[in-house]
Amino acid sequence: MSAYTGRLRCVRCGGEHPDPSLELVGAGCPACAADGVPANILPGYDLTGLTALPVDAAQPGLFRYRALLPLAAGTAPVSLGEGGTPVVELPQLAERTGVARVWVKDESRNPTWSYKDRLAAVAVTKAVEVGAETVVVASTGNHGAAVAAYAARAGLRCVVLTLASVPATMKTLMQSYGADVVALERPPDRWSLMRDLVAARGWMAMSGFAYPPAGSNPYGVDGYKTIAYELVEQLPRPPDVVVVPVAYGDGLAGIARGFADLAALGVIERAPRLLAAEPFGPLAEALATGAATAGPVPVRPSVSFSTASPFGTQQSLAALRAAGGAAVATPDDEEIMATQLQLARESGVYLEASSVTAVVALAAARAAGTVRPDDTVVVVGTSTGLKDVGATAARLPEVPLIVPTIGALDDALAGAPAARPAG
Amino acid sequence: MSAYTGRLRCVRCGGEHPDPSLELVGAGCPACAADGVPANILPGYDLTGLTALPVDAAQPGLFRYRALLPLAAGTAPVSLGEGGTPVVELPQLAERTGVARVWVKDESRNPTWSYKDRLAAVAVTKAVEVGAETVVVASTGNHGAAVAAYAARAGLRCVVLTLASVPATMKTLMQSYGADVVALERPPDRWSLMRDLVAARGWMAMSGFAYPPAGSNPYGVDGYKTIAYELVEQLPRPPDVVVVPVAYGDGLAGIARGFADLAALGVIERAPRLLAAEPFGPLAEALATGAATAGPVPVRPSVSFSTASPFGTQQSLAALRAAGGAAVATPDDEEIMATQLQLARESGVYLEASSVTAVVALAAARAAGTVRPDDTVVVVGTSTGLKDVGATAARLPEVPLIVPTIGALDDALAGAPAARPAG
Repeated sequence: MSAYTGRLRCVRCGGEHPDPSLELVGAGCPACAADGVPANILPGYDLTGLTALPVDAAQPGLFRYRALLPLAAGTAPVSLGEGGTPVVELPQLAERTGVARVWVKDESRNPTWSYKDRLAAVAVTKAVEVGAETVVVASTGNHGAAVAAYAARAGLRCVVLTLASVPATMKTLMQSYGADVVALERPPDRWSLMRDLVAARGWMAMSGFAYPPAGSNPYGVDGYKTIAYELVEQLPRPPDVVVVPVAYGDGLAGIARGFADLAALGVIERAPRLLAAEPFGPLAEALATGAATAGPVPVRPSVSFSTASPFGTQQSLAALRAAGGAAVATPDDEEIMATQLQLARESGVYLEASSVTAVVALAAARAAGTVRPDDTVVVVGTSTGLKDVGATAARLPEVPLIVPTIGALDDALAGAPAARPAG
Repeated sequence: MSAYTGRLRCVRCGGEHPDPSLELVGAGCPACAADGVPANILPGYDLTGLTALPVDAAQPGLFRYRALLPLAAGTAPVSLGEGGTPVVELPQLAERTGVARVWVKDESRNPTWSYKDRLAAVAVTKAVEVGAETVVVASTGNHGAAVAAYAARAGLRCVVLTLASVPATMKTLMQSYGADVVALERPPDRWSLMRDLVAARGWMAMSGFAYPPAGSNPYGVDGYKTIAYELVEQLPRPPDVVVVPVAYGDGLAGIARGFADLAALGVIERAPRLLAAEPFGPLAEALATGAATAGPVPVRPSVSFSTASPFGTQQSLAALRAAGGAAVATPDDEEIMATQLQLARESGVYLEASSVTAVVALAAARAAGTVRPDDTVVVVGTSTGLKDVGATAARLPEVPLIVPTIGALDDALAGAPAARPAG
């Protein structure tokens, strides 16, 4: 039993489209694209008669919530045991920031160690449902790795269009799952090629190819709804604020939709306020000016390469405006990397730079009064620091090589010049 | 309420010692050490009156099983939400190997992405219980990272003695949590220095420093019992065989002790057979010859650097002999790395080389008849491939840089020489 209506609805104009609308997956709403404002179409649900969060404990991973996912009843889930990630409290961060409580939703605890597994689980399951044989994705790493792993699990071919500039770890991870990985020079090159491939070959898009961007595979976006469901099941009471790192806002939109479901079901009184963390601030600018579109804003190379977008999307703007949300730009690489280490050293939680932008944004929003002293806060930790360990290493001393004596250890830890760096 | 007796018992001679016996944590049984055969001392329990697995759902992470952990009643758990890792079925591996069913227990889904978090959670909690201010660990990476993270969480100082040869990713990960990390040339150098530090400074050992090795912190070893408890809660029925990558056998011993608890409680009829996977085979040799000690055997550099030991321990021999276990040497680096990619490409599960030895050992044991066609098998996937991504990258083609046309993509994927490698 699913509450899915079998129809997709544009987040901007409200236009409806039947499932699967394969040509719109990745391109978004044709009417809005014709307006020059690409916008994602997202699944619709009819919650009539439901008064609680429906859970099917016999289903694997996040498919325990499949009644609220956009799948046909008979479709076999493609699961690697994703979701069900823990919330870990960060008391020092709460105290330093000046809020009541903070937890990180540790999404590094997913099958490919990022929250993109939630998107990939649902999008690849949908690809199997509609009979696709090849999936294609443009990605700086986490998204591509997640889709590659789930495609491998499902026996589908996966083609990843990445950038030459992404860290070697990300490239190897995507290749390890057997995906065909190629690099392009500029982000928009990937989208034009993907558009051509979808049209010419009938491949199913796992990410968007509209320009300006509209967001990712609509079915996959609803995989993120499960973060909201889990938070409400895990925490003593729903959080006041949820902070999400954002590029095109698939996670933000999905989480907002999950909380909206919970409010409609009567499980929570009202949805938490959402705070978007973005390296260069297109959404923050649009919210400040009331603009109908977000960006482009100037960008430069960033340690938060997973989220360093000049554009915000219509789905992000809609989610933030509906939930009384806010957005904060986090352009300072040194602040991000210092916060990454601070968090690891005080709490034992080592997140990738793009995830750490959420912690930086929280502090800024508290200072600005957008977040209040009595607020409880969840920060979505989207991926592990292991995905770009080189960025951390560049800010740490070399490990010294010592002889096995206490004196040598003391000298080395005091920074004595006699200690040689160890390989 | 805990079933812990407050006494530790030698795995070789049966001698008993009171908790905390701090001087024996890391050194092992003094009587056996005087015999020249160092052996770990492990916690004792009194299960009288218990007839089911006691679970306290209000406790975080693996502390839900704290009634069967060696902790005082009032001790606050140091938890990062460890444990509760999923089992993921591997149908292609089962078919290829010729066994009934295979699952991987995906321990990469822990807080520092390896099963060492189970050891660290309990050992660091014990360090807090006994009032230690500094913990010290000798590690090639996973163990050190786990202890560093939990020490950070608990506000303790952590000193890691590693090897110059470990991958840069491992060094950075350990440092990221604020540990003081130094490298030594040879493994035994670390142990002699740790012995000196424990004696001179009163630091608490999180790994062993006996030579030949005896195993790690006894309290931490019992953290691994929770893998057995979870497997019995997760699977439709208990597995026939559990395959564990082994160096000094902390995980093997802990898992064996967990299953022994479950058998004593009447939760299972009998413990599964255990299969140890070890790069160079000291346990396999000792089991074949009936020797009282395991190793040293010749070693060389190995992709399975986390487990590449010349010695087996007394705790491993005891666990394997008690449970009708077996051990398999997995010396072939190329076979391990090919199996790593095969597993990722067919199942979406990317494990570190040391974990993959368990898959290699399973195939060998099936071929030898030690594992039978009707057996159900769990492979313990101890850590993620991300911990040494360079070893994988060395066996993959470079990612080609292309122009955004379908023709260029087709050429690149066909291996056309026009495609340039991408950075």
